[in-house]
Amino acid sequence: MPPSSVLKTMSSILSPASPFKLALIQLGGVGADKAKNLVHTRDMILKAANNGAQVVVLPECFNSPYGTNYFPQYAETLQDGESVAMLSAAAKEAKVYLIGGSIPEKEEASGNIYNTLTAYDPTGRMIAKHRKVHLFDIDVPGKIKFKESDILSQGDWLTHVNTKYGKIGVGICYDMRFPEMATIAARKGCLVMIYPGAFNLITGPLHWELLQRARAVDNQMYVAACSPARDLTANYHAWGHSTVVDPKGVVIATTEESETIVYADIDPEQVKEVRTNIPLYNQRRFDVYDDVSVSIKEHEDGTATKK
Amino acid sequence: MPPSSVLKTMSSILSPASPFKLALIQLGGVGADKAKNLVHTRDMILKAANNGAQVVVLPECFNSPYGTNYFPQYAETLQDGESVAMLSAAAKEAKVYLIGGSIPEKEEASGNIYNTLTAYDPTGRMIAKHRKVHLFDIDVPGKIKFKESDILSQGDWLTHVNTKYGKIGVGICYDMRFPEMATIAARKGCLVMIYPGAFNLITGPLHWELLQRARAVDNQMYVAACSPARDLTANYHAWGHSTVVDPKGVVIATTEESETIVYADIDPEQVKEVRTNIPLYNQRRFDVYDDVSVSIKEHEDGTATKK
Repeated sequence: MPPSSVLKTMSSILSPASPFKLALIQLGGVGADKAKNLVHTRDMILKAANNGAQVVVLPECFNSPYGTNYFPQYAETLQDGESVAMLSAAAKEAKVYLIGGSIPEKEEASGNIYNTLTAYDPTGRMIAKHRKVHLFDIDVPGKIKFKESDILSQGDWLTHVNTKYGKIGVGICYDMRFPEMATIAARKGCLVMIYPGAFNLITGPLHWELLQRARAVDNQMYVAACSPARDLTANYHAWGHSTVVDPKGVVIATTEESETIVYADIDPEQVKEVRTNIPLYNQRRFDVYDDVSVSIKEHEDGTATKK
Repeated sequence: MPPSSVLKTMSSILSPASPFKLALIQLGGVGADKAKNLVHTRDMILKAANNGAQVVVLPECFNSPYGTNYFPQYAETLQDGESVAMLSAAAKEAKVYLIGGSIPEKEEASGNIYNTLTAYDPTGRMIAKHRKVHLFDIDVPGKIKFKESDILSQGDWLTHVNTKYGKIGVGICYDMRFPEMATIAARKGCLVMIYPGAFNLITGPLHWELLQRARAVDNQMYVAACSPARDLTANYHAWGHSTVVDPKGVVIATTEESETIVYADIDPEQVKEVRTNIPLYNQRRFDVYDDVSVSIKEHEDGTATKK
């Protein structure tokens, strides 16, 4: 048997949590007019709340077309940007926790641009900020080439959002390919991992659902990914298929590529049941290999970094 | 960008490798008569070799019915057991590398029983020994309950088998649920992870393929899992569905539940291409989270342990 020091029970790992209704807004019609994008986004947040959602998620880059050429033009600071102002007001008006997708963020001091997620509580207070840690640089010859790092700087921390429903790990799109983020989130007590993302028509069918199910089954946690709707008149064609996966790795809510809202009930009891039936959390062999979560310390602002 | 120290190129990670034909023997008719089981297994190894296989894989517990009550009765030492003798002779006669599934192993000195995989080169020499690291203890109420740890002791090392075709990581069945093993194998240069296993009719449809695809897509390596055929007259009903997944996470060979041999071509160039197109190996952020492979040291006998 492993040393008793590594025998944690499931209940000591999952932070206090209660059931909630999650909504993923698969936003359509994101165009060149930022103000118009914001108005439509606000409407959809209110619609999700009216339908009972308590935690609402927006997709990656919801206020701007997606592309390295657009990022500088649409970037704004988190202090006085109009997107952050709308998100805060909408969370308050809708009385929901809002995982605000991502926007191109300009950091005043450095001039750096980031792909940044902000999260809000139902009073409109910003409670977390995640800058995409893994930039999307890929080159599948003849199929898809994209290099965010030409324009964007990368984030340097993990992010676990504290809500009254439990702790929520967040990542942005390409972050999903790197299992350590979800593994650390789960081992630090998050019950769900949420990824605003915009996979494309090559990587979407190949990996979008598989990666979510992989994170869910390996960590016995909920996983949700929220994409924009597909717009074939845009330069970048998003896969859509916003999806929620349960702690067994089973898809419990999904859709096709058009604008819609995907709803799912998130139930901490399901997490506990799966972890009781197949008790991976007691069975990992940290005497044989290391625990990647041990070096990570969480901070009050929702960031988590190496000690 | 991450510090240059963590910028390893794909080619520096994958150990020297060349293409080979892999065969997974989904063995049927494993019954109470061990001698008969061994004769049939040998026949199937020769059949796979006759069909061009260069690396042949057997399922978990191929010489004995699967069940804690059978393990003590069928256990043998690796020094003078009849199963090891057959495997060595068959590898030599067939001129193949043989990943010899698993057998109940009795360790003379301690009296401990292990679920043990042995591997052989084409001269019949035993080149690696893996004892199941994660014992199968689960309890899904009303569906499946099993507790290997009532009888078995657990292995204390990871295993990477050196072959002339490249380095092969191995695990046994439930080991598949613990991603660290495949992650470490890939980061230490293995091009394929092979799991003899025997999932059942509950966990099989839920997780057998998903776990293999998860390991493949996250590590951009081949993954293969070899099950016994299903025998509804036995106490334990194996899922079957022996499967090979490519480094993109795509199933390239599989089957249903009956006895058969599943073949697949393993091509290191595919591993390199996937890792070039989606260069995860240069993009991991070991400045933000640890690399679980760093603490692991490989030894000449194929074992890999914490430094």
